[in-house]
Amino acid sequence: MKPVGPIPSGYATVDGELAIGGRTARALVAEAGGTPLFVYSRAHLDARMAELRAALPARVGVNYAVKANPHPAVIAHMAPLVDGFDIASAGELRLCEAAGIDAGRISFAGPGKRDAELEAAIAAGVTLNCESEGEGARALAIGERLGIAPRIAVRVNPSFAMTGSGMKMGGGPKQFGVDAERVPALARHLIAHGAEWRGLHIFTGSQTLSAEAIIEAQANVLNLATELAEAIGGPLPKLNMGGGLGIPYFPGDTPVDLAKVGAALAERVADLPEVLAGTELCMELGRYLVGEAGVYLCRVIDRKESHGTTFLVTDGGLHHQLAASGNFGTVVRRNYPSAIATRYGAQGEEEVNIVGCLCTPLDRLADNALMPRAEVGDLVAVFCAGAYGATASPSAFLGHGPAAEILV
Amino acid sequence: MKPVGPIPSGYATVDGELAIGGRTARALVAEAGGTPLFVYSRAHLDARMAELRAALPARVGVNYAVKANPHPAVIAHMAPLVDGFDIASAGELRLCEAAGIDAGRISFAGPGKRDAELEAAIAAGVTLNCESEGEGARALAIGERLGIAPRIAVRVNPSFAMTGSGMKMGGGPKQFGVDAERVPALARHLIAHGAEWRGLHIFTGSQTLSAEAIIEAQANVLNLATELAEAIGGPLPKLNMGGGLGIPYFPGDTPVDLAKVGAALAERVADLPEVLAGTELCMELGRYLVGEAGVYLCRVIDRKESHGTTFLVTDGGLHHQLAASGNFGTVVRRNYPSAIATRYGAQGEEEVNIVGCLCTPLDRLADNALMPRAEVGDLVAVFCAGAYGATASPSAFLGHGPAAEILV
Repeated sequence: MKPVGPIPSGYATVDGELAIGGRTARALVAEAGGTPLFVYSRAHLDARMAELRAALPARVGVNYAVKANPHPAVIAHMAPLVDGFDIASAGELRLCEAAGIDAGRISFAGPGKRDAELEAAIAAGVTLNCESEGEGARALAIGERLGIAPRIAVRVNPSFAMTGSGMKMGGGPKQFGVDAERVPALARHLIAHGAEWRGLHIFTGSQTLSAEAIIEAQANVLNLATELAEAIGGPLPKLNMGGGLGIPYFPGDTPVDLAKVGAALAERVADLPEVLAGTELCMELGRYLVGEAGVYLCRVIDRKESHGTTFLVTDGGLHHQLAASGNFGTVVRRNYPSAIATRYGAQGEEEVNIVGCLCTPLDRLADNALMPRAEVGDLVAVFCAGAYGATASPSAFLGHGPAAEILV
Repeated sequence: MKPVGPIPSGYATVDGELAIGGRTARALVAEAGGTPLFVYSRAHLDARMAELRAALPARVGVNYAVKANPHPAVIAHMAPLVDGFDIASAGELRLCEAAGIDAGRISFAGPGKRDAELEAAIAAGVTLNCESEGEGARALAIGERLGIAPRIAVRVNPSFAMTGSGMKMGGGPKQFGVDAERVPALARHLIAHGAEWRGLHIFTGSQTLSAEAIIEAQANVLNLATELAEAIGGPLPKLNMGGGLGIPYFPGDTPVDLAKVGAALAERVADLPEVLAGTELCMELGRYLVGEAGVYLCRVIDRKESHGTTFLVTDGGLHHQLAASGNFGTVVRRNYPSAIATRYGAQGEEEVNIVGCLCTPLDRLADNALMPRAEVGDLVAVFCAGAYGATASPSAFLGHGPAAEILV
C-alpha cells in the first residue's frame, strides 16, 4: 500500500461526492460536456490571495507567473487580484493582452527570447527581465529601431540557491540570468544606452515548503539586491524577489508557514537600506497561487484484475497530468493526492492502481492506493492540478486531445 | 565532458552543413518558415523498411504503430510500405482514415478505450485488440446495437517480458491486455457471441537493442500463441507479435542485429505448429520504423557564459523534445545524438550546454558536449527525433507553441 498525498483544504462533500465551488463532480462534468476535465476554483484562488495579502507586508506586491496556468479564465480572474504578471513567451503576452492586462504590469523572463518576442514586448511596453549581455544588446537595437526606450530589468544568477527547493534556479553555472558579478556593468550599460531602467529579478528556486529556507533566500536576495544597486549606483526602481513557495503534493508534505515568512519579510522591509528605500518589491508566484485551486477529473473506463492487482483504467492520463504520473522532474514516483470523486469521503476498502488510457506503462495516476470501491463510470479526482497540469503535459500524445478546463 | 549519442547513418554534409534529403539544414528551415522544425526523411523511412523486408521472412508482416509519429505526411508515406497500422485512439483512427488507409488494415489497442471510440472503430471495421473482459462486453454490446459483428483480437498480458527492454509491457500485473490464463475463456466467449475472431496481440516490451532478447521474446510469443490457440480451439487468424526493436540513442548503444533476428524468425516460422499454419503473422513497430528518420532543428538564440560554462540557448526545447531533455521515462539523463547542424562535421572545439528556451532547469538538450564553436543564428540538430518527439512533448508549455514538421 502506498499513501496518496494530502488533499488540499477547501474541498467539500455534497451528496457523497466531491464538490468544487458548491457543485458536485458529476454536475461539473455534465456542464463541461464530459471528462477529462480540469476544474479551477475561484474560491481557492481568492482564498490563497487573501492569505497572502494578510501575511505579507503591504510593501511587497504579488506577481502571477502565467506559465503555471495560462487558462484565459484563470488569467482574467487573477487580473484584479495580483499586482503584476510574469510571462515567459510572446504567446503568454498575447494571453495577457487578451485579458486586458496593462503591459505596464507585465514582465517577461526567459533565457531564449527571440527577436520577434523582444519586439512584441518592447512595442507593448512590457518590462524585459534581461537574461544576458547578448539579449540586452538585441533589446537595445530593437528599441532603437522602434524608437521606444525598452523597459529593462536584469535577471541575476545569484551565487546561492534556495536550500531544499524542488528546482534550483541559482547557484553555479545556469542558463538563467547574468552572473551577479557582471550585473552592475550590464545595468550601467543598458541605462547609458537609453533603456528605461526597471531594476532586478532574482529567482532562487521553487517548490520549497520550508519557511526557514524561504526566509533565508529572501534575506540573501535583499542583500544581493542592495550590493548590486549600490554597485550600479542610484536607487533601484523594482526588485522581483522570485517566489519559491511550494505546495504539499506528497505524503508527509506540510504547507509553508506563511505567517512566519510574512513576519520575517515585514521585519526586513521595515528596515531597508537607503538604496532600496523607494524600490517596488514583489514576489513572483505561480504554483503557490493556483496549484491547489485545480482538480483533474477523469472517468473510470475499465476495472480489471491482473495477477491479483486491481486496475482502474481511466480516460485521463499523463497526456494531461505528466507531473502526477511521475514523469516530469521526478526521480522516484510518489502518489499525488487523489480520490474517487463520486465516492468522496467514503472509507478506503481496496488497494488499486489508477492508470491512464495511454498505451504505456508510464501512464499511472496512483499506485497501490487505498480507495473506496469504484466501478466503471465513477470519477477519479487528482488534486493539486491547478499548476503545471494542462499545458505542461503532452496533450497530443496518442491522439486523445486536450482536456476541457473550466473555472467555477 | 559527456559524450553525445551516435548519429544515425544516412545524414550527409553539404557545404559544411547537415543535409537531409539532399537539402541543407538552412534551406529546410527557410522552406518551413523557421525554427523549431522537425524534418522527417523519406529516404530513411524507405531504407529502414527495405532493411526490414530483406531481413524478415516474407511470412511476417510489418505494422506501423501510429503513436510513434502521427504526422499526416508520415502516415501517408508509410501507407504503401507497411502491411497494417496500429492505432491507440479514435484520434489516430481519424488520421488513418484521412490518409485513405483501409480499416481492414487497422487494429486498435489501448487499455482505456471509451465507448465512443469502440463505436467508431467497430463501425469502420477496425480490429479491436481487446484489453479486458469488460471491454469485450462493451464491444459486443456496441456491435449488437450497430448490427455489425465487431472484429476482435485479444491482447494478452504474457507472464514473461522482453529482457533488457526499455519499457516492459508484460510480466506480472499490468494494465495492458488479459492475463494469459484467462485468454482462452474470453476468446471463446467473444466468438460465441458473434465477434469476428481476429486472433491475438502479444506485446512484450519495447526499445530493446539485443537481438538475443528479441529472438527469445519472439520464441516465447510463438509458444504462448500456440498454447492459447490450442486452448481456444481452432486456427488462429492473426498474431500480432509486438515489436520491441530499439534504436541507439545513447553513447555505447549499437543497432539491433536485424539479420540475426530475421534469421531466427525465418527458422521458426518455417516450422510452425498446425494451429498457426494459416495464421497471419506481423510485427508491430513504431520507433524502429521512424525514430532515426527524424531530426529536430532549432536555432541558437543566445550564447552565454555562466561561471565558466558556455550555454547555447536555443529556440527549441523540452516542449518539443521531452524525451531528449531526459524527462520522459528516464532516470539518469544522457545526451541524445546532437550536433551543430550549420557546422556539421567540423571538429569539436569547446564544451557547451545546449539548452532550450523554457524558463526551467529541466530544459536541456545536451550537457557538457564537445561541439564546434557555434554562434547566435547557428542551427542545432537533435537526432532520433522521428519517434515520440512532437506529440510526446508538452507543446503548449510556456506558450511557444508546437514546432513545424516537414517530410522531405
